Amino acid sequence: MNRPAIILTSGGIDSTTCLAIARAEGHSPLFSLTFDYGQRHRQELAAAARVAVAMKVAEHRVIQIDLRAFGKSALTDEIAVPKDRDESKMSADIPVTYVPARNTIFLSYALAWGEVMSVRDCFIGVNAVDFSGYPDCRPAYILAFERLANLATKMTTSEGLPFRVHAPLIQMSKAQIIRRGAELGVDYSLTHSCYDPDSSGRACGRCDSCVLRRKGFAEADVADPTVYG
Amino acid sequence: MNRPAIILTSGGIDSTTCLAIARAEGHSPLFSLTFDYGQRHRQELAAAARVAVAMKVAEHRVIQIDLRAFGKSALTDEIAVPKDRDESKMSADIPVTYVPARNTIFLSYALAWGEVMSVRDCFIGVNAVDFSGYPDCRPAYILAFERLANLATKMTTSEGLPFRVHAPLIQMSKAQIIRRGAELGVDYSLTHSCYDPDSSGRACGRCDSCVLRRKGFAEADVADPTVYG
Repeated sequence: MNRPAIILTSGGIDSTTCLAIARAEGHSPLFSLTFDYGQRHRQELAAAARVAVAMKVAEHRVIQIDLRAFGKSALTDEIAVPKDRDESKMSADIPVTYVPARNTIFLSYALAWGEVMSVRDCFIGVNAVDFSGYPDCRPAYILAFERLANLATKMTTSEGLPFRVHAPLIQMSKAQIIRRGAELGVDYSLTHSCYDPDSSGRACGRCDSCVLRRKGFAEADVADPTVYG
Repeated sequence: MNRPAIILTSGGIDSTTCLAIARAEGHSPLFSLTFDYGQRHRQELAAAARVAVAMKVAEHRVIQIDLRAFGKSALTDEIAVPKDRDESKMSADIPVTYVPARNTIFLSYALAWGEVMSVRDCFIGVNAVDFSGYPDCRPAYILAFERLANLATKMTTSEGLPFRVHAPLIQMSKAQIIRRGAELGVDYSLTHSCYDPDSSGRACGRCDSCVLRRKGFAEADVADPTVYG
């Protein structure tokens, strides 16, 4: 059975687990789509490429996008990345690492590539931890994108087959995600989470992303393969 | 009253008229957003910049996007542009110049820029002629994008003010658009429509876009300032 899927990947734990889930659900071939949006460090892109090779995707594409032109995010601007924050503090407000309309832009490109290849299944690794802070990670948002997609293209309107946005992690905690990935044989040493790695690429261990990652491995009772600086 | 707006512009008749309408409706300051998506010719971008200057927008931004990476359109690939087609033929099928998910990608960037600047009004020049062929030009599509936008961002979710997508031309024919623009003093000699200009930038007069443009001026009974090759 031919059930191709596009997976949005970033080289992190969530999207890598998402890719493993798409594969476990029988989707094939798999296409991974990563965005180069002016991240301050390149380890994410390198991790996404390592994961694509390890997971044997049919095609890994990196799209350059220009979010930096609009500014306003620690991931792309020179705002300090907060360190050693308590998890409750992270979810209390929208993180400084928020990128405006990011998932809307990412999913739009996935829809475009999907239309060109007639691929109607798209996976995105948004989850409960994210959607406490990012509006475009909530279930209602994902449904609204699906509804839009099904009005937007030749593929969806003339062939009558729906475009689906799968968000299999959406109700999962970081620990649940890691446990599921470990069951599926994901090699998390290939992944990268840190917002502020040192010059040799080692994770800082203290930014929000590192704090959630460490806590996730601890709670999942899975050994954390990350080398922290 | 401060009512800023972002206008998606392409240097063509529709988006230029749309900009004039936004101004006439009292929106100020105006921001124009143009996409460089690997068009085969650069006259569109030059026209968009001329129009921005003539219409005194506060900021004109050109975003590079990478639609060519996904292929499949005469505007970006080396497929022949059809010539001398009858209008009925154009609307019978989706044009060869269709770009996958184009308006979804364009509106996503407008939403991102809008969020960064707290601008909640966006204008797009889609119209009845387009939406006979392009699914992402129909009223239902525009509404679905508004609904998505209002779930997608910090601006719309925490401040409770809606993001609006204005499509003032949506029920208008090309002739009606030109008549409205002429009333508003638009200088259409600044605009560019042709899909296949010659090396000096002159319009071919025979591609679908030129055919619609000529017919529009004739039906509007407005003098066509275009020099055709």
